[in-house]
Formats: sequence, C-alpha cells, structure tokens
Amino acid sequence: MISKLIDSIVDKKAPVVVGLDPNMKFIPEYIRKEAFGKHGETLEGAAEAVFEFNKGIIEAISDLVPAIKPQIAMYEQFGIPGLEAYIKTIELCHEKGLIVIGDVKRGDIGSTSESYAIAHLGEIEVGGNKIRPFDEDFATVNPYLGSDGVKPFIEVCNKMDKGIFVLVKTSNPSSGEFQGKVSDGKAIYEHVAEKVHEWGETSMDGSYSNVGAVVGATYPAEGETARRLMPHTYILVPGYGAQGGKADDLKPFFNSDGLGAIVNSSRGIIAAYTKEPYKERFDERHYADASREAVIDMCLDINRAIGG
Amino acid sequence: MISKLIDSIVDKKAPVVVGLDPNMKFIPEYIRKEAFGKHGETLEGAAEAVFEFNKGIIEAISDLVPAIKPQIAMYEQFGIPGLEAYIKTIELCHEKGLIVIGDVKRGDIGSTSESYAIAHLGEIEVGGNKIRPFDEDFATVNPYLGSDGVKPFIEVCNKMDKGIFVLVKTSNPSSGEFQGKVSDGKAIYEHVAEKVHEWGETSMDGSYSNVGAVVGATYPAEGETARRLMPHTYILVPGYGAQGGKADDLKPFFNSDGLGAIVNSSRGIIAAYTKEPYKERFDERHYADASREAVIDMCLDINRAIGG
Repeated sequence: MISKLIDSIVDKKAPVVVGLDPNMKFIPEYIRKEAFGKHGETLEGAAEAVFEFNKGIIEAISDLVPAIKPQIAMYEQFGIPGLEAYIKTIELCHEKGLIVIGDVKRGDIGSTSESYAIAHLGEIEVGGNKIRPFDEDFATVNPYLGSDGVKPFIEVCNKMDKGIFVLVKTSNPSSGEFQGKVSDGKAIYEHVAEKVHEWGETSMDGSYSNVGAVVGATYPAEGETARRLMPHTYILVPGYGAQGGKADDLKPFFNSDGLGAIVNSSRGIIAAYTKEPYKERFDERHYADASREAVIDMCLDINRAIGG
Repeated sequence: MISKLIDSIVDKKAPVVVGLDPNMKFIPEYIRKEAFGKHGETLEGAAEAVFEFNKGIIEAISDLVPAIKPQIAMYEQFGIPGLEAYIKTIELCHEKGLIVIGDVKRGDIGSTSESYAIAHLGEIEVGGNKIRPFDEDFATVNPYLGSDGVKPFIEVCNKMDKGIFVLVKTSNPSSGEFQGKVSDGKAIYEHVAEKVHEWGETSMDGSYSNVGAVVGATYPAEGETARRLMPHTYILVPGYGAQGGKADDLKPFFNSDGLGAIVNSSRGIIAAYTKEPYKERFDERHYADASREAVIDMCLDINRAIGG
C-alpha cells in the first residue's frame, strides 16, 4: 500500500494529506441548518452535517492530494450515526481515488489488536462471507503495549496490502513526558523508532515499508533523529499549520530522494474560510473553494521548503 | 464514580469484573444459527449473536459482580452493527444495575481526546440537545501522549461523575519493551504511575480517585510497586486466569483495607462451558450457568488469596 501512496504523492506533487476532523463550529451554518431541518437536533442531524461538509471538501480537492486522514474521534462523538458518516466519508474518498489514513490510534494485545486490525484494515469472516467493516487503507497505531500490540496489525497489512503509521513522537506539548524519557542513552521515542524500523522490515513494499511512523512537525530535531533511525519508514507528520509547525521545519523529515514523509493539515485546510488570508475572499457558501486554495498554498509552501 | 464501584464491590464481596470479549468461536452454535437464520451471514447476524450471548451471561451473573468490561475491539470488528450491539450491551448492564468499564484504550491529544471522552463518558451537544453517545461509566485510556491526552478525559469525568483506568503496566509478554525501559532509575511504567497518582488528585471521590490504573496480574512485582506509587488509585487487573495470572499473585495489588483492586476475567468466565472443570457439567445450552459457576469460583479464589 505504501507504494501506491508514494505513486500518488509523486504524481500529484503533493506530500500532503488533509485531515478531516470536522468540528461542528467549522461547519457552515447553512449545512447545519439543512441537516437539522431534515433530522432535528439529533446525532443523525449532526452526522449528516459532518458528511455534507466533508463531501464539499473531498470533491474540491480530490485532484490535488493523494490522501485524506479522517480522525475517528470526531465521528465517534456522534455515536452510531457519526461512525456511519465516517464510513460514508471513506467510501466517497475511495470513489474519488483517494487513499484513506484512518486516524484511529488503536492498540491492544494479541487477539484484541487483531480485531482492531480486522475492523479497520481487514476482512471479518461471518459464516462463509468476508466483509470489510471500515476499510481504511492505513490506520494509526499506538505502540505502548509493545510488539504484541503491533504485530497483529502488520499481519493484516501483509494479507490485505494495507499499512499502518505507529506513533513515535507526537506533536503535542506534553509528548515528551514519556516519549522523551531517556533510557540507555536514547529517548523512548527512539526506542520505538528502532522497533518500527525492525517491524517495518517484515512488510517492505518497494523502497519503503507499509509500517510507517508518526512524528510531529513541531519537533524538527526529533524528526531528524527519527529519519536517521528509520531510513525505509514513511513518516506521517502532523502539527503543520494550526499547531505551529512551519514548512522550513519539515526538511529533516524527508529523505534525499525527496520522499519519506507526508505532511498533514486539518484545521488549516478544512476551516480555511474562517482564517486569514482566505476569509476575505470566501464566504461560508464557498468554504470548499477556500480549502482548495489552502491546499494549493500548502503544497507550494512545502515543495519550496523541501526543494521539490 | 469510583465510590459507587467500591460500594458495589463491598456489597457483593466481589472485587471482580467480567470481560465481555465475545469471540465468535465461544458463542454456542444454537445462538449463531438463530441469529444467522434471521439476518443471514451478515454483520447484523454476527452482532445479534454477540448480543444474545452477552444477554445470557449478564442475566446469569448480574447479582454476583459489580461490573462488566466489554472490549470494544470485539464489537468494532463487526462494524456498525457490532457497535450497536456494544451499546445494547451497555444499556442492558445499566438496567441490571451493573457498572460498565468500556475497554476502549483510547488516547489522543487536546480536542481529539476530548471528543473520545465525550463519546464514551460524556454528553455531546447537538444544537440544544445533550446526548450520551456510548455512556460507559469508566473507560480505559492509553497514556503514551502524556498529560495532553489524559486531562481531557479527567475533565469529562469530573463533570459527569465518571472514571478512567490508565494503562500503566499491561499484562502481555512484550509489555516490558517500552513500559519496562529504565529512565532516572525508574521504569517507564513507574513514571506513568507517578503521573496517574498526580492526575488522580484532581478527581478524588472518597478515599480513592476516579483516575484508576491498569496493571496486569501477570506482573505481581510491578503490581506491588504500582500499589506503593499510587496509594489512592484503584487498579484494574487483567490477566487472571486464561492469561496465566494466579490468585496468589493478586495480594500485592490490594491495599491493607482490602480495597484498591478489581480483577478482570474474560475467557475464563464467558467461555467456561468449553473449559475444565465446567465442560463436563454444562452443555452449550447452559453456557450462562457455567459462567455463573465460574464467577462464584473466581470470587472464592480471590477472596481466599487476599484474605477477604
């Protein structure tokens, strides 16, 4: 699956993924009104508003980016209807030829991790039928439980040609509390990075592995270390834009082949119509056009910084 | 919420929680046949089999135990119908006066963690309505992202009188890979335990905190350390029974007041009818009676070991 993602990144000249984390406050009033008019102020109404909002953005940017990263928490908070909107979003992305990175941060042990892997990347056998419950292409995975938690995901990846991104160094201010503790001369995130590299060797797909890593744009020095420890690992880089990561900080995340990283922006793209410099030119009815402009600007910004 | 759990543990003389992790292979054939007969070999059929199986066990043991711990991965693998069965299971537990520990192991940062907390423990505001999407009483939480990931859960706990159990030392063989790395003379799980103690002080409910911890029965020495580092923390102890933890290993997890820990068993209870010594006496039509016997035996075993 990673080779498919790389082909699309190269083809679209866009090492960029758009995070669909639709907070109700970003959704234009006319969309909310229509959805609540149809379903009342219910979970169904909220879920329909979320999906309609996503649909506008997906249709506006599908030719520009290789991948979309829906954050499942933002759907889970609307219960079953929210998760139905999550699945509809994945289906629409696939119709439009987009790769879907499910930001689910799941992780457990043994057969439980296998169940999560089946839910998001695999097929569940029900009697004689095989059914794909959520059908993302990649999922994010939490490594705190060690190899027992991660290997069941890799087995499903190898069977289904899918991929994962394992949390290594997250973009948030307190990520150092445990990830930064130093043991045997190396921070915990470095120990995790070494394991990601080792796990990745069991799932190579061309020059890179289907086992990727998450390292936040807000930590460029750690990005450089992670890049060195995991030469064949694709790095999913959150934290650009709204969280404070700058394009010039991104260079260390990439390899000299110009590949090796894909940068996420969520609010900076999906709420562009509420922010400078777009809000003067786009009203809420044109929120998706603002997102398109913001994607174009983000690609230019990143390609300039990495010399692409 | 922890005081409510403690009252029920004392009342029922059962520091025990039953894990509802229904694997299809544990579900008696007659239940599967009936569900598939109604819905075909579909996710709906599988989900109905899961719920009917759960219902039998919940009704057979609700007077014996304070709490039930459904493992959401086992439901998520059956997609939307599976998650509907998860919610129905929670609702039935609440009707029977049981406390529900959602074993969801969620964890993210900031507003995303808040969304998970709202989904599982809180209320989502939709227009003028407040709706509880999943409505567990406790949720398990992964600490890898640090305070940014955990504090939003505690805020929701304080608002809603709910609780969490933070992963400290998990029961699986590879849990030492990262949790056991030593930094500043202490293992990572000890650093996490210290933080759990600190976080817990912001959510006290009687003598214990609504912020609990998970420490596996398979690691009694680490259980003793965790107990010492977190005197006011309730410890959820998985790994008893099928995973190899013995009752005699459980004593260090308890405080001298006889409280402080609640021990989980999943397969050992829900699949008791397939295992010694129950399988001679109970056929699949009486799987729930076997579970009841296994719960009684487990309570005796644990109370003997801890001198309760």
